[in-house]
Amino acid sequence: MAPQLDNYFATVDNMAESFIDRLRKAVAIPSVSADEERRGDVVKMGEFLATELRTLGAEVELRELGKQPHKEHLDLPPVILARYGSSPDKRTILVYGHYDVQPALKEDGWATDPFTLTVDDKGRMYGRGSTDDKGPVLGWVNAIEAHQKAGMEFPVNLLMCFEGMEEYGSEGLDDLIVEEAPKFFKDADAVCISDNYWLGTEKPCLTYGLRGCNYYSVEISGPAQDLHSGVFGGTAHEPMTDLVKVLGSLVDVDGNIAIPGISDLVAPLTDEEKALYKDIAFTMDNLYESLGSKTGLFDNKERTLMGRWRFPSLSVHGVEGAFSAGGAKTVIPAKVTGKFSIRTVPNMEIEAVDALVLAHINKVFAALGSKNTCKPYLQHAGKWWVASPSHWNFTAAGKAVEHVWGVKPDLTREGGSIPVTLTFEQATGKNVLLLPMGSSTDAAHSVNEKLDRKNYVEGIKLLGAYLHYVADEPMS
Amino acid sequence: MAPQLDNYFATVDNMAESFIDRLRKAVAIPSVSADEERRGDVVKMGEFLATELRTLGAEVELRELGKQPHKEHLDLPPVILARYGSSPDKRTILVYGHYDVQPALKEDGWATDPFTLTVDDKGRMYGRGSTDDKGPVLGWVNAIEAHQKAGMEFPVNLLMCFEGMEEYGSEGLDDLIVEEAPKFFKDADAVCISDNYWLGTEKPCLTYGLRGCNYYSVEISGPAQDLHSGVFGGTAHEPMTDLVKVLGSLVDVDGNIAIPGISDLVAPLTDEEKALYKDIAFTMDNLYESLGSKTGLFDNKERTLMGRWRFPSLSVHGVEGAFSAGGAKTVIPAKVTGKFSIRTVPNMEIEAVDALVLAHINKVFAALGSKNTCKPYLQHAGKWWVASPSHWNFTAAGKAVEHVWGVKPDLTREGGSIPVTLTFEQATGKNVLLLPMGSSTDAAHSVNEKLDRKNYVEGIKLLGAYLHYVADEPMS
Repeated sequence: MAPQLDNYFATVDNMAESFIDRLRKAVAIPSVSADEERRGDVVKMGEFLATELRTLGAEVELRELGKQPHKEHLDLPPVILARYGSSPDKRTILVYGHYDVQPALKEDGWATDPFTLTVDDKGRMYGRGSTDDKGPVLGWVNAIEAHQKAGMEFPVNLLMCFEGMEEYGSEGLDDLIVEEAPKFFKDADAVCISDNYWLGTEKPCLTYGLRGCNYYSVEISGPAQDLHSGVFGGTAHEPMTDLVKVLGSLVDVDGNIAIPGISDLVAPLTDEEKALYKDIAFTMDNLYESLGSKTGLFDNKERTLMGRWRFPSLSVHGVEGAFSAGGAKTVIPAKVTGKFSIRTVPNMEIEAVDALVLAHINKVFAALGSKNTCKPYLQHAGKWWVASPSHWNFTAAGKAVEHVWGVKPDLTREGGSIPVTLTFEQATGKNVLLLPMGSSTDAAHSVNEKLDRKNYVEGIKLLGAYLHYVADEPMS
Repeated sequence: MAPQLDNYFATVDNMAESFIDRLRKAVAIPSVSADEERRGDVVKMGEFLATELRTLGAEVELRELGKQPHKEHLDLPPVILARYGSSPDKRTILVYGHYDVQPALKEDGWATDPFTLTVDDKGRMYGRGSTDDKGPVLGWVNAIEAHQKAGMEFPVNLLMCFEGMEEYGSEGLDDLIVEEAPKFFKDADAVCISDNYWLGTEKPCLTYGLRGCNYYSVEISGPAQDLHSGVFGGTAHEPMTDLVKVLGSLVDVDGNIAIPGISDLVAPLTDEEKALYKDIAFTMDNLYESLGSKTGLFDNKERTLMGRWRFPSLSVHGVEGAFSAGGAKTVIPAKVTGKFSIRTVPNMEIEAVDALVLAHINKVFAALGSKNTCKPYLQHAGKWWVASPSHWNFTAAGKAVEHVWGVKPDLTREGGSIPVTLTFEQATGKNVLLLPMGSSTDAAHSVNEKLDRKNYVEGIKLLGAYLHYVADEPMS
């Protein structure tokens, strides 16, 4: 029998303005983690969240993480660890979110003040952090309050982990998660993260996979200092000449990675999996709109979604050390560093990819016969993540989406990485679900970030409904 | 019979301290043409020079050039046009130099204040503009004064053209030269420019050739804005992928230009010409010292000098629009512009090279089959220049070098361009000689620019001696 949620939903609707007001207060605190000057505001935002949670009866701890690496004068903002409910009869769900935001300045091109929540006549609520990730974080707070106001028992024990450094590398968080896995997080039966977006604007989704990323530098050096091409052109091996050849050997223009062995690591596509892509709410026009051009690699949505989610890709990002300004400069750069990365998918292990990449580059460079020196190296790596979407955590979320939005959610993966997802899975050993609130047009990280009023209000219903369905699901 | 120069040389030696003092005053005026704030100092330097010349009896005009293009609030500094002597019985030599300097800040790494001439115990005179080009410009002034002090008749009529924008594109100069060729410059029998350097540090040279330069941009664009590689990697054609392939098709690592037809334009190397390189004072160690590495293309000096002077070269300078900072950024740049240039030699005409370059790039890009857009274009071009070293202008200079330095000068070319050289040749139709004063270690354009006291003092003798030998040479 489906959970009885009419009272909860009606209460959320009635409280909508006060929930928007809570988001307005949060957006007004410019908790920009990348900006040292704003560190006080990040802490203030953490304290605001702690106060809201305490007021609702949660046990809250502001966990200090010490000094920021390489900035020893700067304290990291605290991680908010909170528990709401501790009944042994209930399932325990661990939720994660972040209360810091990307930088934002009016002069970057915002139509409104980025730190004043501004709602337009279409219900679009503009403001930095509205969708990423203050809206979803407050979604959990609002769900607790609405249950109290509705006089309903909260269906699960809720563990919360809200950090303040997500937009600046989640400094210190991994260690905390690993440390608390057998302590504060030990009761968790599953994990839910609301920090991503629908694939489009109309249909909700549940996300069960992310690509990983191996990020590389290839440094090629020769002369001791930059040279004038008039004087030295034609007399010396030029690092940039070598580098464009090395970078040109990595991927073809159709996106096929040209590094021998890489494709052998990719899990074969089964007919069953292939069939899943047909029904996903996505069109080629969605792609062309996002690109602002028709320069897609494929002419059908199935192959496009596979290109984004389940096949690896290689992008050349740029060159450090060469001439990069406008105009003309006749320099022979002495040392150039090419940057590229490979988005990885099952079953590409970081080390296996790394071995193939380095062997390929070393071989290509050796074949060039240049007297310059070539040093390829892995800058950083994060593993791909794929969860089982048949776990009760996903089943419950799927039912909640259908209840709130009247439609079965798409089961999606994403092309980018949310490293904390994998950390939670590995540290707790529990199923992790990504349950987005906002839509693909929310412009997280960009100017005019927004969250639609409808996504916020229905999203609060969704988070609550999800917890009720979680309580109802049989063990799987 | 050789000119009698003992009296002149002795006078120069006696006046050396006052000539150094004149250079000290000039260096103290920070006439940085690239810096708007210093424009007043550039004008001040022009006026200083005009006053020195007038005091010695020259007719001097400060020719205004109007406003600086794209900076309509800024007057260009005047060109100093001066004449010393107008005897119809004498040859007339037109000399060119510039009184502006490159930017210089102590904090760039100068060991001494760049605008205070500082002479060390080895006679190295440090200061911005010491060698480039205030020392040589004052060399002409000093030569006039020394003749007066020595009571000697000046051997030629001297026309002078000293500009104040050389380090910032010689704005306005070309038009002036073309306009004055049949007027102020009409009596000129030959041109002498002292604004380059010896090939090494021990042996003077006369320079009779420069390479030209065709500078290109290749712009490749696709999406309307930069994309996140996690979301779009594997779904769209990436401009940077295409660009590295196009740039990789231009030249091989051994410096051979891979654009079909280019090598056919290069004048064949004759046995006679080949024999000239053997005796040039240059060693592979000179190259390795300049490079700070042993990454030379060739293992012998003859081929190395040919690579620098008489064969074309192609350098890839960098990429505009891609990620160019340190660290890692997972961007797919939407529009990237590769920059490269070709140093040209006889008989590579600008237009012929251009046609081959554009055809090659368009063909390579078309073969890639990318949906992106590729626009290659010529940013700017300057033609190569080669003068006849058997002209009396060179013969006279060669005898003067032998008289002053006791050694026959090397006849050299240079790999870079000094565009005004070609303009003077084309506008006046006269032979142009490059007669350097400083040596290869003077660090023009760099920190700790210097001119050796010996090069300055003997250089003043050389400029005067050259004019005497010019007066003595038969018509050729």
